[in-house]
Amino acid sequence: MTREITERLIDAAEGRRECDLVIRNAKVVDVCNKEVFEADVYILSGMIVGFNGKRKARAEHDAKGRFLIPGLIDAHCHIESSHLSPSEFSDAVVPCGTTTVIADPHEICNVTGLDGMAYMLKASEDIPLSVFLMFPSCVPATPFEHAGAILNAPDIEKYIDNPRVLGLGEMMNYPGVISKDPVVMEKLETAYKRRKNIDGHAPSITGTSLDGYAAAGITTDHECETPEELHDKVRKGMYVMLREGTACRNVLQLLPGVNERNASRILFCTDDRQPQSIVNDGHVNYGLSLAIRNGLDPVTAISMATLNAAICYGLSDRGMIAPGKRADFILTSSIDNGIEPEEVFILGKLAAENGRIIAKAPHTEPVGVSGKMDVKDFSEEKLSLRPGSDHVRIIDIIPGGVVTGNGEGWIKRDEKGEWIHEDEKDILKLAVIERHHGTGNVATALIRGYGMRHGAVAVSIAHDSHNIIVIGDNNSDMVKAVEKLIAIGGGITMYKDGRELGTHRLEIAGLMTDLPLEDVTKCLSQMHEKAYQELGVSKEIDPFMTLCFMALPVIPSLKLTDCGLFDVNAFSFTDIAIKD
Amino acid sequence: MTREITERLIDAAEGRRECDLVIRNAKVVDVCNKEVFEADVYILSGMIVGFNGKRKARAEHDAKGRFLIPGLIDAHCHIESSHLSPSEFSDAVVPCGTTTVIADPHEICNVTGLDGMAYMLKASEDIPLSVFLMFPSCVPATPFEHAGAILNAPDIEKYIDNPRVLGLGEMMNYPGVISKDPVVMEKLETAYKRRKNIDGHAPSITGTSLDGYAAAGITTDHECETPEELHDKVRKGMYVMLREGTACRNVLQLLPGVNERNASRILFCTDDRQPQSIVNDGHVNYGLSLAIRNGLDPVTAISMATLNAAICYGLSDRGMIAPGKRADFILTSSIDNGIEPEEVFILGKLAAENGRIIAKAPHTEPVGVSGKMDVKDFSEEKLSLRPGSDHVRIIDIIPGGVVTGNGEGWIKRDEKGEWIHEDEKDILKLAVIERHHGTGNVATALIRGYGMRHGAVAVSIAHDSHNIIVIGDNNSDMVKAVEKLIAIGGGITMYKDGRELGTHRLEIAGLMTDLPLEDVTKCLSQMHEKAYQELGVSKEIDPFMTLCFMALPVIPSLKLTDCGLFDVNAFSFTDIAIKD
Repeated sequence: MTREITERLIDAAEGRRECDLVIRNAKVVDVCNKEVFEADVYILSGMIVGFNGKRKARAEHDAKGRFLIPGLIDAHCHIESSHLSPSEFSDAVVPCGTTTVIADPHEICNVTGLDGMAYMLKASEDIPLSVFLMFPSCVPATPFEHAGAILNAPDIEKYIDNPRVLGLGEMMNYPGVISKDPVVMEKLETAYKRRKNIDGHAPSITGTSLDGYAAAGITTDHECETPEELHDKVRKGMYVMLREGTACRNVLQLLPGVNERNASRILFCTDDRQPQSIVNDGHVNYGLSLAIRNGLDPVTAISMATLNAAICYGLSDRGMIAPGKRADFILTSSIDNGIEPEEVFILGKLAAENGRIIAKAPHTEPVGVSGKMDVKDFSEEKLSLRPGSDHVRIIDIIPGGVVTGNGEGWIKRDEKGEWIHEDEKDILKLAVIERHHGTGNVATALIRGYGMRHGAVAVSIAHDSHNIIVIGDNNSDMVKAVEKLIAIGGGITMYKDGRELGTHRLEIAGLMTDLPLEDVTKCLSQMHEKAYQELGVSKEIDPFMTLCFMALPVIPSLKLTDCGLFDVNAFSFTDIAIKD
Repeated sequence: MTREITERLIDAAEGRRECDLVIRNAKVVDVCNKEVFEADVYILSGMIVGFNGKRKARAEHDAKGRFLIPGLIDAHCHIESSHLSPSEFSDAVVPCGTTTVIADPHEICNVTGLDGMAYMLKASEDIPLSVFLMFPSCVPATPFEHAGAILNAPDIEKYIDNPRVLGLGEMMNYPGVISKDPVVMEKLETAYKRRKNIDGHAPSITGTSLDGYAAAGITTDHECETPEELHDKVRKGMYVMLREGTACRNVLQLLPGVNERNASRILFCTDDRQPQSIVNDGHVNYGLSLAIRNGLDPVTAISMATLNAAICYGLSDRGMIAPGKRADFILTSSIDNGIEPEEVFILGKLAAENGRIIAKAPHTEPVGVSGKMDVKDFSEEKLSLRPGSDHVRIIDIIPGGVVTGNGEGWIKRDEKGEWIHEDEKDILKLAVIERHHGTGNVATALIRGYGMRHGAVAVSIAHDSHNIIVIGDNNSDMVKAVEKLIAIGGGITMYKDGRELGTHRLEIAGLMTDLPLEDVTKCLSQMHEKAYQELGVSKEIDPFMTLCFMALPVIPSLKLTDCGLFDVNAFSFTDIAIKD
């Protein structure tokens, strides 16, 4: 807060100065007392002045008895998962009632390093949505792949004092923490020195195993899957987030663990929400609504999505409707069946109405993060797949999640030992093509359960290193798909019999686009439709998102990086051939 | 937290390093889930490592099923009110389970200015009790008196970046805030710039009147007297403290306003507790126990006295029993009827046992804050009291509080117009002698209800400027009492017929002593006894504390400063004589 604005608010509170706006006849959700009260809410210079009283205001807005709720705070997300640039993301989520996000830009930083951090800060600086960043702690995620950058403590030091950088992003390297890996400890130390937050990521870690991780000062966790896990992490002093993403959905799993007594330690987050999920279901308000519809007291739930996140991240200027706080709020007719924002105000100005953005965010030129595809010597020959045996390891897609099975099977090989696709078997070739450093790395493997009969699909989103990943039954379509992505600087594309079936361009780091959400979802819907209809992809899975997770070597069981087939449980590379 | 200690904790959590101590068979009070669980608690380097598991420890301590509670945090106090130096205060309150205090040294700063701030920081630096300070915001409290110092924004700037200075102390100048007094706003601005806390002090201010004060970013309030006031201040975003001091006791008044839904916004504080209150009833644990005995859930109450205060003041290393947090805790057999600490541990070491201090605090030489009494030309003549009428204004003592009545009455005067004491009337002379700047100021007035028949009592504690205040029926004893205080550098003394009945020396700024609590209370008890028995002071009042508040011109109705008789309701000086 500044003295100048404070003095204006004092004058307005005392009736010595006209307010900008009064919202009349509101049912204000008081997240501190956890109750609802009726009031006129006065606003000046984007901030709340106070309630009722004989004050004047230049403009009035009649809430007509609707609920006035603090703007929602997404406690942890990756904007990149929306495929949208920060400005388009703002236009997309503000209508859902999200007015503040704490974002970890670790996807773009894996591709473009500090340029990604600089871009995300700049592109989110003057937009209606408040964007705070956590500096990504794990770039690259593992040493088993080539990412676009390596970010260590000296890089963190360059950004962590920025007032919009609230600390260190999710520390996924749990083993590095408990083994006191010096590189990890140096990163943590940057946050210790400044008493800034460190977000956690500790799936299934509980009990005594959790002690060392918690003792390292990890502030939050968003990877709980059971009420017991939530309970244990709260006990260990962590704030726990109820995550409702597109792939990972934990609200209903965790809800039985939330009660009035521990609610002040629980937040909401979206982590990764795909564009279609935002369009169809909403953003933070979706998880929040789910919790309410499944029995959580609405005001308690709202306090978790507002006040608690503000407290956890030290955002003392928001999270409640009170004098001196930001006038970020939602008007809605009901809170008992979830939160559907009818109007969203940011800094006291109408920003969205009935799901449509009004306060469109200005765009920022994507400097240093656009379109570079440093792929060396790519050719059909690089897609060669010659296992040393007909008995092979196969990545088994498991619908509904990002875990894969470590499968096996029998294949046919030609006279050169090259894998032969068999129409009657749902086994396809998967390849990962390094795109950051021109290493020329291409790794191939076999994958089952995708359903596609003929053609190729390629994407430049492949967690966390975001190399190009391509799936197909024939090298020709696969090469065309990869070359298309190289030509356009990244995105999603599909080929069949040499013909392009559809392409979705992601010109920012191969991850995001500066197109509006509607265009993105329209294009993706058409492509989804074609993937199912023309390529025959299994309807049990998402044709594109499934591929995005096939290169992630920290999720069991069998994955493919640009360096080869990786057995996650053994935490080492493995051979495609099974030597009997 | 530091990397070095964190690494040790991680090693210990993983069983790679021996712990210092394990507390076996404890019922741990989990203030995050608000429940109790049974565990062995491992400790290393003064911090909690974790619970249970196959770990080793050099020493064990059997809790025998007792409750293990986080060390209590006093969210707002003035150490000076205990009459004890910080080291002796530590010895006094640690046995009560208080392990952290947030102290506003505004008494000593009113006497000695920045030297007082420096002394309080130094004297509390390496003692078992954790002492954090709020920089006093209102020195002097009013312009109607001479204090020892004037502290403004440039003075605050010198200290506010100290990591043990958490912000600005109670902003008593409510009118200054809402009138945007530039001097006040400059002070507030020092906290705004650093996003530090600003404690509030807003007795009876609610509704629209509160908006401007809350909008100024005031973080807390400890002056609520009704549940409605508490409720309104919580609504306006402030943390509200349940205060249980010696004179001001609000726990029972406010308790009906506290419930499970707003409990996370409520803290406990003592504000001003006299030495006898600490000895007889305890410290923060007294207010906490009172709340529990009157129906507040014990674990909720404990969370208010621990976690909530830690959150409010950003003390992320304490307030709960969890890995990586300070091993400050209490062991006690029961929590259902209040908290009587049987053992108190600080940084994992036994600090007190059954009410006795074990970890005695080292003393600090009181440099720049000792004994100076700059009183100029004091003589019997200065005590002259010649009202211009027999009909006079009289300060009426009202037992049980610090408010006085604006009384009147008829007196006798001698031929020179000098007031004559009448044995049958309970009217005495009160005088305030300026002691900081040698102004020679002495003001006199009449006071009723003290009960003393013959003699004089003088004290050098007189809120907030702490000039010498003396009461008596005759000038001779009054002069002797004042001269005694000047000679010893401050304290409390009583005279009768020229004979000293007892003296309690307060050699640090005339407010505190470096003697142990037991000596202080023993001396004070004897003096209380003599005041009642030999001087005939009314048993309805405390003979010394009553005097301490007679010079405080912000508490209604009639008070006396070194500048004269002050009508608090009219907020101006007034005449003793009533001109009919």
